[in-house]
Amino acid sequence: MYPNWILQRAFLTPNRVGLIFNGNSWTFEQLKQISLNRAGQLVANGIRQKQRIAVLGPSQPRLIFMMYGCMHLQCEMVMLNRKLSKSELEYQIQDAEVEVVLVDEADIDLLPEHIQKLNFSTVEESNAIAIDIAADWPVDQTITIMYTSGTTGFPKGVRQTVGNHQSSALSSVLNIGLTEEDVWLCALPLFHISGFSILVRSLLYGNAVKLYEKFDKEGAVQDIAEGKVTHMSVVAVMLERILHGLEEHQLKASPKFKVMLAGGGPVPKKYLERAHSLGISLCQTYGMTETSSQTATLTNKDALRKLGSVGKPLFFNQIKIDSKEQGKEGEILIRGPHVTPGYIGRFTDKSPTIDGWLHTGDIGYLDEEGYIYVVDRRSDLIISGGENIYPAEVENVLMGHDAIREAGVCGIEDEVWGQVPIAFIVLKSDIREEELQKYCFEKLAKYKVPKKFYIVSELPRNGSNKLLRRKLKDLI
Amino acid sequence: MYPNWILQRAFLTPNRVGLIFNGNSWTFEQLKQISLNRAGQLVANGIRQKQRIAVLGPSQPRLIFMMYGCMHLQCEMVMLNRKLSKSELEYQIQDAEVEVVLVDEADIDLLPEHIQKLNFSTVEESNAIAIDIAADWPVDQTITIMYTSGTTGFPKGVRQTVGNHQSSALSSVLNIGLTEEDVWLCALPLFHISGFSILVRSLLYGNAVKLYEKFDKEGAVQDIAEGKVTHMSVVAVMLERILHGLEEHQLKASPKFKVMLAGGGPVPKKYLERAHSLGISLCQTYGMTETSSQTATLTNKDALRKLGSVGKPLFFNQIKIDSKEQGKEGEILIRGPHVTPGYIGRFTDKSPTIDGWLHTGDIGYLDEEGYIYVVDRRSDLIISGGENIYPAEVENVLMGHDAIREAGVCGIEDEVWGQVPIAFIVLKSDIREEELQKYCFEKLAKYKVPKKFYIVSELPRNGSNKLLRRKLKDLI
Repeated sequence: MYPNWILQRAFLTPNRVGLIFNGNSWTFEQLKQISLNRAGQLVANGIRQKQRIAVLGPSQPRLIFMMYGCMHLQCEMVMLNRKLSKSELEYQIQDAEVEVVLVDEADIDLLPEHIQKLNFSTVEESNAIAIDIAADWPVDQTITIMYTSGTTGFPKGVRQTVGNHQSSALSSVLNIGLTEEDVWLCALPLFHISGFSILVRSLLYGNAVKLYEKFDKEGAVQDIAEGKVTHMSVVAVMLERILHGLEEHQLKASPKFKVMLAGGGPVPKKYLERAHSLGISLCQTYGMTETSSQTATLTNKDALRKLGSVGKPLFFNQIKIDSKEQGKEGEILIRGPHVTPGYIGRFTDKSPTIDGWLHTGDIGYLDEEGYIYVVDRRSDLIISGGENIYPAEVENVLMGHDAIREAGVCGIEDEVWGQVPIAFIVLKSDIREEELQKYCFEKLAKYKVPKKFYIVSELPRNGSNKLLRRKLKDLI
Repeated sequence: MYPNWILQRAFLTPNRVGLIFNGNSWTFEQLKQISLNRAGQLVANGIRQKQRIAVLGPSQPRLIFMMYGCMHLQCEMVMLNRKLSKSELEYQIQDAEVEVVLVDEADIDLLPEHIQKLNFSTVEESNAIAIDIAADWPVDQTITIMYTSGTTGFPKGVRQTVGNHQSSALSSVLNIGLTEEDVWLCALPLFHISGFSILVRSLLYGNAVKLYEKFDKEGAVQDIAEGKVTHMSVVAVMLERILHGLEEHQLKASPKFKVMLAGGGPVPKKYLERAHSLGISLCQTYGMTETSSQTATLTNKDALRKLGSVGKPLFFNQIKIDSKEQGKEGEILIRGPHVTPGYIGRFTDKSPTIDGWLHTGDIGYLDEEGYIYVVDRRSDLIISGGENIYPAEVENVLMGHDAIREAGVCGIEDEVWGQVPIAFIVLKSDIREEELQKYCFEKLAKYKVPKKFYIVSELPRNGSNKLLRRKLKDLI
């Protein structure tokens, strides 16, 4: 059993600031009081302890209060991605068998109409019911469920337990250290593990989170230059904009700014060099939903010496390459207490691990010192602005259209987003590109919609008729 | 499963210094190489993997190499206390059923002759046998066994597992923070949890330990004043000498010196004030063998405001008072992943916990903010220079003497050691005090031998004939 993080943190350091947003701040004691009240209000609205519910809303304090309320109730929270299409959200809500979606009114139109909803304001305006709140949580209790796609193209709901989140936060602190003055800037979505893990760290470490509703270049540049924040997690596209902002204003990072963790895909070498000259200690990370955030991190010290590497595993994690020869490429396997125990819904019976090892599908190698290099992402994964796009998922949608016989999707380089998806299709009947786009926008999150459609007579396939996505680009 | 700490730390930060002793230093890679070799040498001398062995030696690097060698072999290490008498050591060796004691030649005369011994130098001079070293350890694997006494007067062998030690180190880092430059001064015995836990932290945190063979006032004063160390664990008697040394030389603690953890009994208020004025951030702690070191710590910030308190529990720990009324005194109960799973030997079947709660026997209360105050130590425990003395254990020895009918032991205040034991005896036949002392020195560690013997006609007892130790002093 581990203590309820919210109660324990408020007990230990009640007067420390835990959350900052738009000039307001909340101590851990205040976060506790508000979230306990929210828990009672949720129960007043029919939410049961340990029930699985879904949550959807912009990155604002009220979302955090609602989530912490759910955590007090030991609910399993399905974290809905605000960028998804209605049909994608519907898939997740059905697969997770959630009876109700807790939704910020601002996001109500993102949901299909027939879905059972409970508005944030309805909860907030209720009278709380007095309930017993669990003072401690079992290590294998599921806190969050986040959907991620894979080879099949069907998103899988990944469980992230108390033990997973804790291990991730503790491994990370052993890597980057901790002082009482640390303040994390959180401008990544809270529905992604990259954002949610910042909240977990805050509760365990006792540090403030400075929350941004959306990434705000000018704000981040100021916060970093003035030392108002000490840590930040970014994806490459955000990093570039921050670097640009600092350069533009001829500013440097404050010496108080300690670490920028860059995840969600590779960071171009030039960014590293620019960060270095702007006084930013940049650590490239490697992680995924199944590992509750970072599993490996390259320290700033090694950034240039080990260019292109994602570093070494964090303390409690182990990484090996499924390859017969030392130093050769192979699938990246991960083990540790941060690895998900498994999926929910239609993938419940599909174990993500074999003998405790998570098979990532990513291809990589270790150099002679044990630094990890990721050579190829799982399932031809496309990473666009830090968001994962699985070609199979987009292909499934395309092939659902009456006019399309076959579809192949791959990524091409993009200056802003790192990569963007493009599609190759074999038609059954004629169709205009605009129609295809419209169809895709209905079915897919915007960032997944192919930026371009190429109509071809056949797709490259191997002897057993498997699509060779890497050869798609040759068709352009 | 958790990674083998020694291998993982060497893998992650091979070139960081892990150990400093008498002007020499060893990196984590060197510690790994030496200890792996030691593991192979131990096997060459008949030590088996997972065997329970005992270890005895002065606080020198070779003791650490030997212990790390044992840890690679997943041996259960019974940590023998160098201050004990032969008969006390014999009890532990027999109770633990260890077949062999690994012993530094310097300490060989501390052991009874007939005990099976394996000298450090015999191991060090052997050719290592190539063996498979476990890359990871189960959470419930016993790393160390440390003997501690109790109400019965018979020392109990306390298991400390991988999970216990890890949880303790991780809870502590969330309390006091971490930077790469941290260096811990270790002048406490490695056979006590207070000393051994410094090694565990070093492996998990990646920080150097500056090891002292013995506490050296002048050395410690210099290291603290010059900022060569950042952290130190002390007991009150050491603290006083350090304070005195700093005052004597008109020195202050370097700003680089971060935290002094003071455990092993209460710290006088005057010491706190003196530490404060010398720039030492002093944190009073509360812990015991059964909790693998600290379970609660008072931060420096609260030191004067909450004088006399041992603070709040560390993050993963829970403490409550077994009392019907809020705020009233009662037995201190502790729960958390740092609490021992139990004892070995004759106490194997005696669970230290009830419903997961460790019953400490200590009496205390919580104030309205949840700060813990220890009012009375378990079983009339006497704490002398940080060493625990259980009256029952000393009484058992005394009553083993032919001339003694009854015996009662309690502590009196002592300027140097905090407390020292004194004895009250009812005689069967005449005996001189020198004879009694000689007898005690044979059977007991020096620090346990009563400083004075009072011959009385009867001992204070209650209606059910239970000895009232607290009334003993009235007989003086």
